[in-house]
Amino acid sequence: MSEAVEQQQDPAQAQPPMVAEDGSPANMELEESKEMTEQGEPVEVPAEEPAVPTEPLIPAEYEKLAKGCEENPEDFNGWVYLLQYVEQENHLGVVRKAFDAFFLHYPYCYGYWKKFADTEKKHGNVQVAEEVYRRGVQAIPLSVDLWLHYMSFIKDNADHEDPETPGRIRAAYEHAVLAAGTDFRSDRLWEAYINWEMEQEKLANVTAIYDRILGIPTQLYSQHLQRFKEHVQNNNPKHFLSEEEFIQLRVELANVAAAANGEGGETTPADELPPGTEDLSDPAKRVTEIENMRHKVIESRQEVFNQNEQEVSKRWAFEEGIKRPYFHVKALEKTQLSNWKEYLDYEIENGTPERVVVLFERCLIACALYEDFWTKYAKYIEGYSIDGVRHVYKKACTIHLTKKPNIHLLWAAFEEQQGNIAEARRILKALEATVPALAMVRLRRVSLERRHGNLEEAEALLREAIAAGKNTSETSFYAVKLARQLLKVQRSLAKARKVLLDAIDKDQASAKLYLNLLELEYSGDVQQNEADILACFDRALSSPLPLDSRLTFSQRKVEFLQDFGSDINKLVTAYDEHQKLLKENESAKRKAENGLTLTSLSTKQ
Amino acid sequence: MSEAVEQQQDPAQAQPPMVAEDGSPANMELEESKEMTEQGEPVEVPAEEPAVPTEPLIPAEYEKLAKGCEENPEDFNGWVYLLQYVEQENHLGVVRKAFDAFFLHYPYCYGYWKKFADTEKKHGNVQVAEEVYRRGVQAIPLSVDLWLHYMSFIKDNADHEDPETPGRIRAAYEHAVLAAGTDFRSDRLWEAYINWEMEQEKLANVTAIYDRILGIPTQLYSQHLQRFKEHVQNNNPKHFLSEEEFIQLRVELANVAAAANGEGGETTPADELPPGTEDLSDPAKRVTEIENMRHKVIESRQEVFNQNEQEVSKRWAFEEGIKRPYFHVKALEKTQLSNWKEYLDYEIENGTPERVVVLFERCLIACALYEDFWTKYAKYIEGYSIDGVRHVYKKACTIHLTKKPNIHLLWAAFEEQQGNIAEARRILKALEATVPALAMVRLRRVSLERRHGNLEEAEALLREAIAAGKNTSETSFYAVKLARQLLKVQRSLAKARKVLLDAIDKDQASAKLYLNLLELEYSGDVQQNEADILACFDRALSSPLPLDSRLTFSQRKVEFLQDFGSDINKLVTAYDEHQKLLKENESAKRKAENGLTLTSLSTKQ
Repeated sequence: MSEAVEQQQDPAQAQPPMVAEDGSPANMELEESKEMTEQGEPVEVPAEEPAVPTEPLIPAEYEKLAKGCEENPEDFNGWVYLLQYVEQENHLGVVRKAFDAFFLHYPYCYGYWKKFADTEKKHGNVQVAEEVYRRGVQAIPLSVDLWLHYMSFIKDNADHEDPETPGRIRAAYEHAVLAAGTDFRSDRLWEAYINWEMEQEKLANVTAIYDRILGIPTQLYSQHLQRFKEHVQNNNPKHFLSEEEFIQLRVELANVAAAANGEGGETTPADELPPGTEDLSDPAKRVTEIENMRHKVIESRQEVFNQNEQEVSKRWAFEEGIKRPYFHVKALEKTQLSNWKEYLDYEIENGTPERVVVLFERCLIACALYEDFWTKYAKYIEGYSIDGVRHVYKKACTIHLTKKPNIHLLWAAFEEQQGNIAEARRILKALEATVPALAMVRLRRVSLERRHGNLEEAEALLREAIAAGKNTSETSFYAVKLARQLLKVQRSLAKARKVLLDAIDKDQASAKLYLNLLELEYSGDVQQNEADILACFDRALSSPLPLDSRLTFSQRKVEFLQDFGSDINKLVTAYDEHQKLLKENESAKRKAENGLTLTSLSTKQ
Repeated sequence: MSEAVEQQQDPAQAQPPMVAEDGSPANMELEESKEMTEQGEPVEVPAEEPAVPTEPLIPAEYEKLAKGCEENPEDFNGWVYLLQYVEQENHLGVVRKAFDAFFLHYPYCYGYWKKFADTEKKHGNVQVAEEVYRRGVQAIPLSVDLWLHYMSFIKDNADHEDPETPGRIRAAYEHAVLAAGTDFRSDRLWEAYINWEMEQEKLANVTAIYDRILGIPTQLYSQHLQRFKEHVQNNNPKHFLSEEEFIQLRVELANVAAAANGEGGETTPADELPPGTEDLSDPAKRVTEIENMRHKVIESRQEVFNQNEQEVSKRWAFEEGIKRPYFHVKALEKTQLSNWKEYLDYEIENGTPERVVVLFERCLIACALYEDFWTKYAKYIEGYSIDGVRHVYKKACTIHLTKKPNIHLLWAAFEEQQGNIAEARRILKALEATVPALAMVRLRRVSLERRHGNLEEAEALLREAIAAGKNTSETSFYAVKLARQLLKVQRSLAKARKVLLDAIDKDQASAKLYLNLLELEYSGDVQQNEADILACFDRALSSPLPLDSRLTFSQRKVEFLQDFGSDINKLVTAYDEHQKLLKENESAKRKAENGLTLTSLSTKQ
């Protein structure tokens, strides 16, 4: 457990030289800039350069690196070089361009958001830096690290003379724990919040925060109880309890004491209470009340803790299994993937929808490049919110999985299911523009048009695919699809036949084409079509198909003539020809075997 | 060469103990009977037994052995035991019954024909014995050995006082050489004929026989020329030439002499010739003429010989390759089979039809149990004689290959081609009675009835086959055939569907049945039939089919819905279900692999 905490708390340790585990080259960069400053060269504004009001020109090297990244955004190292380069150049225009472009593809690299904010701040743009942080926590709201950096930034840059500052900081902490506070590893954020309230000496606020965290399953759940107990022991209930709870407890305790002294009647104390929070006049009673109150306060929290401990223990093994909770372009191990899957299934089965969603969001940081988890998320959300599903698909397809076809097909199908035909069409077309020449995408486009009655468009899409086919295997594949569509949907046998015959002309050794032509001819009246069917067999038999394919056609021709043919003479002839082919095949096999024997002999020698 | 000759001439040498190479147990039998006679026990008519005029009762042992043979005629050893038994029993009634039954199946075992004739003769039935020989040489006219035995028998039993005897014997020899004399290995027969004419001192007949054999390619072709030369040298042309040839030669020689002496004019000798064959009066001229005639005679035969030698040399390697020219139930070596095949192909290409037929007949003694050669023979004859083809098929199917389906199917097809539908039907039915439950035969019967419009009979035959099916694989096979026939020939989709649904009821794990049902539903309008097609997919998917089959159906269901389905929701659902099946499959595979690993681990331990 403690190891995992350390790893998360200090992601800079034990990392590969080029790219940090969290996708940030932070430590290396920091060292470099340190070196530079140690050498006495101020990085920010070189003294020699005149302060020009216009932005400097964009360097050619930048253009080159940026172009590479745009063309191949999957190459994470390309981005790392680009971001290193812009930091060195110290040119705020290109820094902004580079980070903005980078975050379109990798919004989950929290380290780079901090880097970007730091650079803005270094240039004195505190407002812009804060805006960067706001964008960052919006992009990756579960990043405890980014929230902590953001909070430090806010506190460092706050006007402490302003009486409204504590309220603003408190609101920011509230924002942070609402966004990330149910994460199992959110303890550092809660602790920071508690510590800050301590500093503000708002002990009742501290108690209220403990009351929240003690009910949330987190990694350091038992440490919180320990610290809460210290907080209770070291302070006066009047200070660490809310007025409401304090009065309630005093009444409860007074009732208990009265009952013990034989003083019955519950109305009496109620009358005495209106001011309610004054110290008891009797010092002995005062001490007793404080101790009793502390006991009561801890006792009630202990119950919540016990229940929470059970929840933690159910999730402990899953959480232990999460070795890399942050985003990285490197593939995750299989055991990690299956751990996420099982954890999600467990939470779907047992948790609240809120917990499930948080877990999905956490999972989709670590597993952002895995289609299956996005799909699972979308399917889960489908039971709750159509807009939620759309949001999931959009995020997956436009940011993380721009080139993965399956999830795009699911998205398009989803939009079609919602009746958004134009959007479905747009999604498929966009995908085809990004990843051209995928059969599954083209067929889905055809399918979409066909379902909505655009038969001409469906046909045109298939003909276009035939024309664009890179090889006969592709053209023949689409020809078969087109022929089937023409036959079965447009109900035109003649058009279908022409498509197949044209395809055979171009691809004479495709058994599949002959089989489809056969199926087409066979689909009609086999007695009337006998001549066409036989012609198709003969076309295949006299083609440059390999011998074993021709044998299959020959066998099927004999069967056809036996089952449906009108003429015994044709059957006998076909049978004879089949025997000849069989013999040809046997002697070919023998030759091959002899060849093999000779080869193996010569190999032995 | 000489080895082959010896082997053929003495088949009794170096044979396995039980059955002789030529299928005759002759030597063993002879030894046994010799032993018996050496022990002084006369075999034929035991002295103790009274001479009863009525035939003795048929022994129970005979009935048992004969029944075994009839039930299993392929078991050659069974027949050997039966024939051994009847010889020992010396009971002419059962001898005749046994041999007659045997020859129905094995007419090519020439040794047994001799044995049968010998037995008849031993009983004093010379006429019957001769009838046996006649039946024998009719059954196997190319058997030189049988002819030689027959000739010996004729000569031994001839009435040498009768002046017509030589004529009858000569006629028998003529019959023999006409039947077997073009066989490459017929030399012994020709020699016997020549020797007999020598004994009769008919030298001109001897010359005439030489004139025939010298033009026939045989194994001992050169020995014949040698002996012919001796025959010419040792005898007077006046004796060994026909009167016609003698006169012609004398005229030729006289003309030559006259030309040499300057005596021109051809009319003179012609006038002198009427008597023509008197010895020349001048002794010197006489000797010269004899020598000149001998020279001329040999010279003209030498030319024929030379041409014949060429024919022999073309066939020598093929003939050398024939190691077992006689019939035997044991399989022939592959090299022998291919030698026959190549020899036949050579002769078909180069020989006269007569030679080809003789070679086929020879081949079909050695290869009587090989369907391919019979078929080849029938195909060859087809170009010459329809009756010839019928004869070949009949011989093959009713004697040698009673249980081989292919040749029966060819025979039936041939008869159908000739318009003999009833005969074709009879052949197929008879074959089915001999070898029941062969799908190829049943389907050919169905096919025959269908071609001739008997659709009800065709349907009934398939239904009968379904009912008689020994397992689900058989019943489902015929169900598919019936369904296709009902759909495509009777054009009844409803009947066809019912057949397949009934079949699925009985054989729920047959992918083939679901595929055929699918094809049937798909054969109509796929848009109207969408519900039926999907129902068929779901039937397969909820069946006890193995997972990988269900995966295929699931994949095809997705494709169907994409290509032809009306509803995106159904497509999405099918896609989801397919993904589930894929995952199920993967985990099943993983389990299997783990199982394998465990097994291999435990094996290692």
